Amino acid sequence: MGKGEFELIGWIKEQFEVPEGILGIGDDCAVIPQRDGLETLVTTDMLVDGIHFLMEDIDPYSLGWKSAAVNLSDIAGMGGKPVGTFLSTALPKSIPDGFTEEFIRGYKDISDRFNCPLLGGDTTAAKDRLCISVTVLGSCGAGQSLKRSGARTGDLVCVTGTLGDSAAGLRIILEGHSERQEFLIGRHYRPVPRVAEGQKLAATTGIGACMDISDGIGSDLRHILEASGVSASVDVRSLPLSAELRDLCARRGWDAAELALDGGEDYELLFTCRPGTPVSIPHTVIGEIIAAPDGSDPAVPVIIWEGTDRDFTGFRHF
Amino acid sequence: MGKGEFELIGWIKEQFEVPEGILGIGDDCAVIPQRDGLETLVTTDMLVDGIHFLMEDIDPYSLGWKSAAVNLSDIAGMGGKPVGTFLSTALPKSIPDGFTEEFIRGYKDISDRFNCPLLGGDTTAAKDRLCISVTVLGSCGAGQSLKRSGARTGDLVCVTGTLGDSAAGLRIILEGHSERQEFLIGRHYRPVPRVAEGQKLAATTGIGACMDISDGIGSDLRHILEASGVSASVDVRSLPLSAELRDLCARRGWDAAELALDGGEDYELLFTCRPGTPVSIPHTVIGEIIAAPDGSDPAVPVIIWEGTDRDFTGFRHF
Repeated sequence: MGKGEFELIGWIKEQFEVPEGILGIGDDCAVIPQRDGLETLVTTDMLVDGIHFLMEDIDPYSLGWKSAAVNLSDIAGMGGKPVGTFLSTALPKSIPDGFTEEFIRGYKDISDRFNCPLLGGDTTAAKDRLCISVTVLGSCGAGQSLKRSGARTGDLVCVTGTLGDSAAGLRIILEGHSERQEFLIGRHYRPVPRVAEGQKLAATTGIGACMDISDGIGSDLRHILEASGVSASVDVRSLPLSAELRDLCARRGWDAAELALDGGEDYELLFTCRPGTPVSIPHTVIGEIIAAPDGSDPAVPVIIWEGTDRDFTGFRHF
Repeated sequence: MGKGEFELIGWIKEQFEVPEGILGIGDDCAVIPQRDGLETLVTTDMLVDGIHFLMEDIDPYSLGWKSAAVNLSDIAGMGGKPVGTFLSTALPKSIPDGFTEEFIRGYKDISDRFNCPLLGGDTTAAKDRLCISVTVLGSCGAGQSLKRSGARTGDLVCVTGTLGDSAAGLRIILEGHSERQEFLIGRHYRPVPRVAEGQKLAATTGIGACMDISDGIGSDLRHILEASGVSASVDVRSLPLSAELRDLCARRGWDAAELALDGGEDYELLFTCRPGTPVSIPHTVIGEIIAAPDGSDPAVPVIIWEGTDRDFTGFRHF
């Protein structure tokens, strides 16, 4: 390749001229204005065997669920209402009987929860490995979608739910299910995107930036900071951690902060708000947006991690 | 799998309840009405190394071009105007340096021709083979999009351009480029979707059904007949064939009708129109829509192939 994932995306983005009013590459979704005061949101994610999941570990129901959920989470990250999904699958001959039916059952269960039907797609053969691509369309009031670029100095940095559960679940799976941790494994296999919460944030005055947490805050918060031209301080002692995660980390000597900040796949919402904003959804304040330090490169935002001497950069796919 | 491609798609379609007014699985695109008299069209296609293309044969420029073109062709098949595309790629480590840049160059050249920018996507690693998924959004006046269900008894069956060139090009490629046939190979690698022609058809009164030709008329015409509840007769002596294809078939003893009807990947338009319709685009009449024969199963449309004693069923992916 020669280029990293984000550098490659940046280069591709430069190749295309996007009409005025349309938001293209760079947020959780593209935003296409409609003439009647609505915006169409579009997001797409690909899941590949051996990279995003392991066919020998995941059950088809969970894989179907997760394929829809991670895309619905991008709609949630913009504060949109899901409208419909598109599913393409490249299926190797080795796929067991009944796999597709179970996959669709999981896909449907999480889609139905948000009244978001499958509207199209493509089914094809594959030579070796299963590859899944999902696209979701959503809608939002014109100008209401929550972008990465909305963070301002003085904003509080907030997250929904708890962090690190999914990463801990993955580690348990990879180490061979040596103990039953249904909650943590479920958080990894069957995340529930924060769709209703995202819509509430989009309707709240005082929300700054918002996105869903897919690569871990160590990476995702940097996206917000880059897009907004600011820096942040985060107190790692204030990270919301589930009792299950705390317990497991205590017993195994795992670093909960590392799982919470570098693990990724939480599919919670990361957002900023002006102090005093009446945020109507459960959330935890984990830090503050600060001005970029004097003399720092504005293209390289700084995150000050309080309560630790480590740095966190999130999960990198490439 | 246990299910064929079309049976599988039918089963999946049954699992999801689609809201009134939205057209889901079953046409070239899904159609989502907007409140201001426009419809949003959405289509998605997946291209997999070893199934849809061979990495060792195709150049990255052509692969990028074709990945966008086959999706733009679905928008053309509904008579829509392309708005934007979404590109996801799973890239194995073996991808040569410069591949992505050339791929994007081809993708961009055909996208630019229709003023259709890339608006988003996903880039990820792959274990073995390149997998590409493209989604295109288009727009159309409310109720104007051309569906497969619009064919009526007495309609003429028409196609744009020439048929079989792409299939002949593929055969030349697979047999090892033993002769230079730039036109036919170009028709396979770099098809030009009939976007302007589709929009003109959508604006013409008297057009029945329409779709793009991806699997060959032997398969695609059956989709129109099934959706419309009719049958057809096609005169294989009237198929539009390029001089290059005729010449090659004469020299090699290849069956031009087979390439034209079973080969697929023409990315021309197949449409029906009432007799006397002022069709303003170049086209060839190849047959007629007839009532389903007495006693025949309405779910299994009949195609009478005139001028041959063979049957044609198109290209099957599964």
